[in-house]
Amino acid sequence: MSIVKDFVLSCPLPITDYPTVTLAHGGGGKLMHHLVEKIFLQAFGGAPPDTRHDSAVLNFPAGRVAFTTDSYVVRPLFFPGGDIGSMSVFGTVNDLAMSGARPRHLSAGFILEEGLPMETLWRIVCSMRAAAERCGVQIVTGDTKVVDKGKGDGLFINTAGLGVIEHSQVIGPASVRAGDAILVSGDLGRHGMTIMSVREGLGFEATMQSDSAPVAAPVLELLAAGVELHCLRDLTRGGLASALNEIAQAARLQIVVEEKLIPVRDDVHAACEMLGLDPLLVACEGRFVAFVPSKDAARALAILNRHAEGTAAVCIGQVGGERPAVVVLQTEMGVKRILDMPGGEQLPRIC
Amino acid sequence: MSIVKDFVLSCPLPITDYPTVTLAHGGGGKLMHHLVEKIFLQAFGGAPPDTRHDSAVLNFPAGRVAFTTDSYVVRPLFFPGGDIGSMSVFGTVNDLAMSGARPRHLSAGFILEEGLPMETLWRIVCSMRAAAERCGVQIVTGDTKVVDKGKGDGLFINTAGLGVIEHSQVIGPASVRAGDAILVSGDLGRHGMTIMSVREGLGFEATMQSDSAPVAAPVLELLAAGVELHCLRDLTRGGLASALNEIAQAARLQIVVEEKLIPVRDDVHAACEMLGLDPLLVACEGRFVAFVPSKDAARALAILNRHAEGTAAVCIGQVGGERPAVVVLQTEMGVKRILDMPGGEQLPRIC
Repeated sequence: MSIVKDFVLSCPLPITDYPTVTLAHGGGGKLMHHLVEKIFLQAFGGAPPDTRHDSAVLNFPAGRVAFTTDSYVVRPLFFPGGDIGSMSVFGTVNDLAMSGARPRHLSAGFILEEGLPMETLWRIVCSMRAAAERCGVQIVTGDTKVVDKGKGDGLFINTAGLGVIEHSQVIGPASVRAGDAILVSGDLGRHGMTIMSVREGLGFEATMQSDSAPVAAPVLELLAAGVELHCLRDLTRGGLASALNEIAQAARLQIVVEEKLIPVRDDVHAACEMLGLDPLLVACEGRFVAFVPSKDAARALAILNRHAEGTAAVCIGQVGGERPAVVVLQTEMGVKRILDMPGGEQLPRIC
Repeated sequence: MSIVKDFVLSCPLPITDYPTVTLAHGGGGKLMHHLVEKIFLQAFGGAPPDTRHDSAVLNFPAGRVAFTTDSYVVRPLFFPGGDIGSMSVFGTVNDLAMSGARPRHLSAGFILEEGLPMETLWRIVCSMRAAAERCGVQIVTGDTKVVDKGKGDGLFINTAGLGVIEHSQVIGPASVRAGDAILVSGDLGRHGMTIMSVREGLGFEATMQSDSAPVAAPVLELLAAGVELHCLRDLTRGGLASALNEIAQAARLQIVVEEKLIPVRDDVHAACEMLGLDPLLVACEGRFVAFVPSKDAARALAILNRHAEGTAAVCIGQVGGERPAVVVLQTEMGVKRILDMPGGEQLPRIC
């Protein structure tokens, strides 16, 4: 994303005396304070020293607050369309958005492997800062640990997020009703296949970019427009198949989707075929599914289509009334089959 | 801790079909759902499936909320007096308590290494549950990632915490005043030296236990009794020396402590001497320092001494008025020396 590249270019690595992360950077002494001052506070800003704390102190209005966490272990750390830093912000922002919350604050916990180049860490925290600015969230508290060389893999990041729920809707599987329209916010599987293409050298990475992006803005606009949102779910590990199966089982309703309506790019299809994967089971990092009453479907799509992250949003099916609580795929060949939840691991360490 | 042992004994490993964690357990499919249902939700409880979400939705009163995070990478995973699970709860609870917050909710992010015995994971989540019950906090949201064998070290845990600030005091270095009494809540250095004794086979681990414990209850009682708390800081990495130096620098005031008043057990002293370490630089995991106006010092100590985690609380010095903003140690030999912040790493991976 150009916003990230621009920001990194404008932020040369501050002087840190150390070209790589050492165990001492996690020791609680001068070197750790140096790392926090020179890298983390330099990038994220922070309270003045005399008000710094073991915790951030935030002011919240009375009411509902959404709270979520994710760890990020993606390999490689940088990939076309994103990196572990921006992903660790967008992913947690998206989890908050799926509750219809306005994302406000993030924590950031770093587990660094001894020997990580300081320049790599700096690029990643710059990317996190640019991502946080794009989403309107603040990174307000953090932690750094260092593990011995060979006991980690460069770095892992955990973010936890807080968001304020400003509406009164109850968004979740319990609100799903027979007849609801099922919308997806864009084309599927690009994140997972971009990562796999880079790792396996499939050659698609020249033109294919991860879909990693924040989706809070379109969700908040749907809410502001008064669209009824029965359920939202972002399509990460396990892809569309996992998300729909979770919702069908939890709501105890059948879900019917039409294969020809589900947007998958040709290059994603081709990469999936090379690896024997089903694009409906592949992770995205900037896509979600929305269950809305059919009366609101056209209006919701119009709103989504106005957003960069929703230009390709479409309706892919609807909630059926009858049992059993499974996901039925109407294939392009005209037959129906059960779209099951993936068994185990298709793609390790994609997020 | 017997509470943890009792809980684990009463909770046999649920049937999981897999003796060890596989990459597929992080894949977003059936195996990951199985792991979440059988291990995490079994131990922590959780919302009914139809209200489960990407985020937990919490109700908060209007006002100040404390938010913090820590990752835990301690080695070994189990040690006399605790384990990574209980530590990941107590540590984050303690960070919240240092803002004078009442800890309420935790998130838990797991980074599991492929091959981790399922029974180990189960013991650790049982320990987290017992620890959370002891602190009166709920683990309300979580995440699991699995990394390839050799790219992690058993497991790493991140917890983030939320607490409600129910008082109007401003606790932090900016509130520290010349003349403040400096209290420590118990003997120092036991956590760090217990871990080192186990790792180095020093032989002290037969009698020495980590001080890992939650300290929110005594802090909340100090607040309820109307004791003015100018600053609190838990004594983790870098020990007392790091905490006092941070506060002296941030408050721009001199701190004077007396070596003979600082409680360190004989076995901790002996273990430190064997390794050439200074106990004032060694981490605790259940100790804090409190800066209170001298008028409140005796009352604060009386309250602390009533708590299991504060029976050995004592006053170790006071805040001096004069510059420079350093920590002065009056030694048992009667001389004064600067107690500097540790340079780098004394003890890797103690928390």
